[in-house]
Amino acid sequence: MNKSSLGRFFEDFRMGEDIVHAVPRTVTEADAALYLALTGSRFSLFCSRPFAQSLGFAEVPLDNLLVFHIAFGRTVADISRNAIANLGYAEVRFEHPVYAGDTLNVHSKVIGLRETGNGQAGIVTVASRALCAEGRTLLTWKRWLLMAKRDPDTRSGVNSPAELAPEVSPASLPLPAGQSFADFDRAASGESWSYEDYQPGEIIDHVDGVTVDDAEHVMATRLYQNNARVHFNQHQMASSAHGRRLVYGGHVMSLCRALSHNGLANGQWLAAINGGTHANPVFAGDTLYARSEVIDKWEWPDRQDLGALRLRTYGFKNCAWEDMDTPVMTEKNGRRQYAQSLVLDLDYTVLMPRR
Amino acid sequence: MNKSSLGRFFEDFRMGEDIVHAVPRTVTEADAALYLALTGSRFSLFCSRPFAQSLGFAEVPLDNLLVFHIAFGRTVADISRNAIANLGYAEVRFEHPVYAGDTLNVHSKVIGLRETGNGQAGIVTVASRALCAEGRTLLTWKRWLLMAKRDPDTRSGVNSPAELAPEVSPASLPLPAGQSFADFDRAASGESWSYEDYQPGEIIDHVDGVTVDDAEHVMATRLYQNNARVHFNQHQMASSAHGRRLVYGGHVMSLCRALSHNGLANGQWLAAINGGTHANPVFAGDTLYARSEVIDKWEWPDRQDLGALRLRTYGFKNCAWEDMDTPVMTEKNGRRQYAQSLVLDLDYTVLMPRR
Amino acid sequence: MNKSSLGRFFEDFRMGEDIVHAVPRTVTEADAALYLALTGSRFSLFCSRPFAQSLGFAEVPLDNLLVFHIAFGRTVADISRNAIANLGYAEVRFEHPVYAGDTLNVHSKVIGLRETGNGQAGIVTVASRALCAEGRTLLTWKRWLLMAKRDPDTRSGVNSPAELAPEVSPASLPLPAGQSFADFDRAASGESWSYEDYQPGEIIDHVDGVTVDDAEHVMATRLYQNNARVHFNQHQMASSAHGRRLVYGGHVMSLCRALSHNGLANGQWLAAINGGTHANPVFAGDTLYARSEVIDKWEWPDRQDLGALRLRTYGFKNCAWEDMDTPVMTEKNGRRQYAQSLVLDLDYTVLMPRR
Repeated sequence: MNKSSLGRFFEDFRMGEDIVHAVPRTVTEADAALYLALTGSRFSLFCSRPFAQSLGFAEVPLDNLLVFHIAFGRTVADISRNAIANLGYAEVRFEHPVYAGDTLNVHSKVIGLRETGNGQAGIVTVASRALCAEGRTLLTWKRWLLMAKRDPDTRSGVNSPAELAPEVSPASLPLPAGQSFADFDRAASGESWSYEDYQPGEIIDHVDGVTVDDAEHVMATRLYQNNARVHFNQHQMASSAHGRRLVYGGHVMSLCRALSHNGLANGQWLAAINGGTHANPVFAGDTLYARSEVIDKWEWPDRQDLGALRLRTYGFKNCAWEDMDTPVMTEKNGRRQYAQSLVLDLDYTVLMPRR
Repeated sequence: MNKSSLGRFFEDFRMGEDIVHAVPRTVTEADAALYLALTGSRFSLFCSRPFAQSLGFAEVPLDNLLVFHIAFGRTVADISRNAIANLGYAEVRFEHPVYAGDTLNVHSKVIGLRETGNGQAGIVTVASRALCAEGRTLLTWKRWLLMAKRDPDTRSGVNSPAELAPEVSPASLPLPAGQSFADFDRAASGESWSYEDYQPGEIIDHVDGVTVDDAEHVMATRLYQNNARVHFNQHQMASSAHGRRLVYGGHVMSLCRALSHNGLANGQWLAAINGGTHANPVFAGDTLYARSEVIDKWEWPDRQDLGALRLRTYGFKNCAWEDMDTPVMTEKNGRRQYAQSLVLDLDYTVLMPRR
Repeated sequence: MNKSSLGRFFEDFRMGEDIVHAVPRTVTEADAALYLALTGSRFSLFCSRPFAQSLGFAEVPLDNLLVFHIAFGRTVADISRNAIANLGYAEVRFEHPVYAGDTLNVHSKVIGLRETGNGQAGIVTVASRALCAEGRTLLTWKRWLLMAKRDPDTRSGVNSPAELAPEVSPASLPLPAGQSFADFDRAASGESWSYEDYQPGEIIDHVDGVTVDDAEHVMATRLYQNNARVHFNQHQMASSAHGRRLVYGGHVMSLCRALSHNGLANGQWLAAINGGTHANPVFAGDTLYARSEVIDKWEWPDRQDLGALRLRTYGFKNCAWEDMDTPVMTEKNGRRQYAQSLVLDLDYTVLMPRR
């Protein structure tokens, strides 16, 4: 028997099962530097110790998305090796800052299993959790995937769909307990805007574009030790529908988030991701643009230093926002459909300093 | 109003104005490792702790050019987003070594403003300064740019050109005060040459060539958080005169400096850059070569351990020095013109151990 | 005289000569993070501090191959600038773990010199040693190369071939003295297999493939400060037989080793490399696959915690193992010949936890 693994199929998951993911990872300052080089992020919280400490962080925390991608990377070998598609994320909660030296241990619980109508595949939903070595929860998230079946011809009849919250509610939003945004240095962050300056419905065109290169997205994905085959194997992908390696969706999220610095430079701390969809694939050579809409804003009577903005950031490829001549989403025969140039629809919540 | 910024135009600068640049940056060992991987530098001072400490450095300092590029990167969003061209550098002074853990804060003073003859653009000169969190000046430099006007049709009549020194003079050259080159280990550095071995007029052909790749120059430029659009957006650059992303001139400087190790391995500490010109653009796929000329040499009676060499390093593309069949510079209709294969003309001063 | 070096030729080596290599290197956590990003390695020992410490390591050690490549890189300027081919490695012994902060000093002794039959070139064999600043030997290895002659027309008559051991024997295998694999965490490593589960003759197909990109292999090679020209200079290589830059063989070793995690996840510590051959060149764009054979297995009465597996890992390009329709090696006119898709034949010894 070959000792290498081909990964799990739909039939290999059991409702309620808890999967401990291998390859715990001790993160370092080098992960942060590589993240800058791979994404172009400019949020001062993640690159300046005096800035981070002025907000009450012990040290420079690792960028929330970097932590998310590394934690997510732990789960790929067990969960998504045979995924046909990553359908979405929900309830991503950034519970605690992660610092260089912390070790991420990740496990996942199967919370939904549902065979597709034609019986050819199944939808698997897992709730994942990243803990540090001391046992504190750093990050939790849910995701669901379309999973290949080992035996597509045998019906399983499994039908236990998961229930997912449409948002991380203001009441449950994880706010950094030991931190305060009262002395937020807007000269250092790069923009003067405060929580009060943003209004629901407001749209921010982030203006700039960034082209993705092969070595770059591959290095990013490997830094996260995400070993999904579609990102790495050109020999195999040449005979796929796309003919090319797919850029990891998490890298697309990070590039769009980095672009969003221009207009959202003070939305530095990601508290939650409410939902996310990779609407169309991205390939090396594509140029990404981003624009954000303020969906909602929340404040708390006991936190005069900060409020939260719920944002929806769209990522586009090879088309600046101002040149976009079709709506982001259309309905066709009753089905909602994303524009072909739309690659990311990310609904998330950032903390903003108040005036 | 869109909250993202399009950057300043010529009309937005005021003589004497002081601009505090955002995104202070705490540098780490990882910046140094990435710099090695991105440039191929082999100067022992920047990669060996025992070597650095034998010269009196507290730790391995960050490569001077790495520090310069990171400091420079802070200024781009405020200064050069709408630059038509970076015309040159002058009076770059490396005042103090920078170590992992130091934070760079950068600000710039506008010291020259001059509308061009046709009124379509203007030349802006700034004096910039990088300080560590404790307030010590690490690095100062001046640069001038051709800046787009917001309204090219309205004459401003501004005519306050800056005066720039042609060199950082021997008398004012910043020498590392707590360091001594007396025990300079030439087996560790890789060459036996000393200050006394170099003579003005001497030429060193650095022999080797290095090809630039897209992901590489983009990662280098992002590591510096330099967000000038011309380096990143292929979708936009496709319709430019060049049709391609431009390689950041600072990366070209670093590649040529790395090549110069072969023949100048003991010229490790950069004390000053007297002037620099990016004579022609570099694109991914180009192969760079370098050759240096010793312009001058200086010594000080109270420093028996070291002297300084003023060097002029030329960078070429797709043409080794020995195959070059045109002069570096020609005159045509009274105008000096660089050969098309010449990409860099860098005039700088390094410290060299004495015998 | 040009002060830059063109490197040594066959005539420049003397039997018994000891060469101290320049550019000592202090390794950091950043080298480890870059190695993950450049190779996709997932061995938990090299990325998790709790895992490393549970085996008795003081900290996360640097991946053995990363250490080997960095140590090897020191020797290139002196040894292999004018190599026509790297013919092989032998007796690579990993004596001590290397941690962030350690400095590698490397020297080589010439142990074999033999002119080729036609007198046009010569085979040079060196024994190299990497020591930390405190003088402890970290790593030793031998390699032999086909070296160009400065003057191919003058016979040297030199004929002192080196003798090389075909393997690092079980009796002399360096076992980590202060470490114990008794508490090896197989949930963390990712596989349940133990020493007892592997049998000589067993074959493991590592299944996955990975495509090499230009910027990636160049960055890896530069991280090791290996400055062999064939990897970097496209302008020069365009007129070579291959027309392209060659991927550094060490990078190929690392990619195949990273692929081997799937099936050999518990073979984390490399004790020795018995021999290695780069059978065919690899270029950017090639996709690598790997499969391993268990050659032998060894145990020691005083080490109940671990045994050793002698493995032979083959690397293939653009051809998965299952699609391979020719034998790995054929004989033609009495000469053994590798299949064209075979790029690496690596014979090495890993330690495995016992049950």
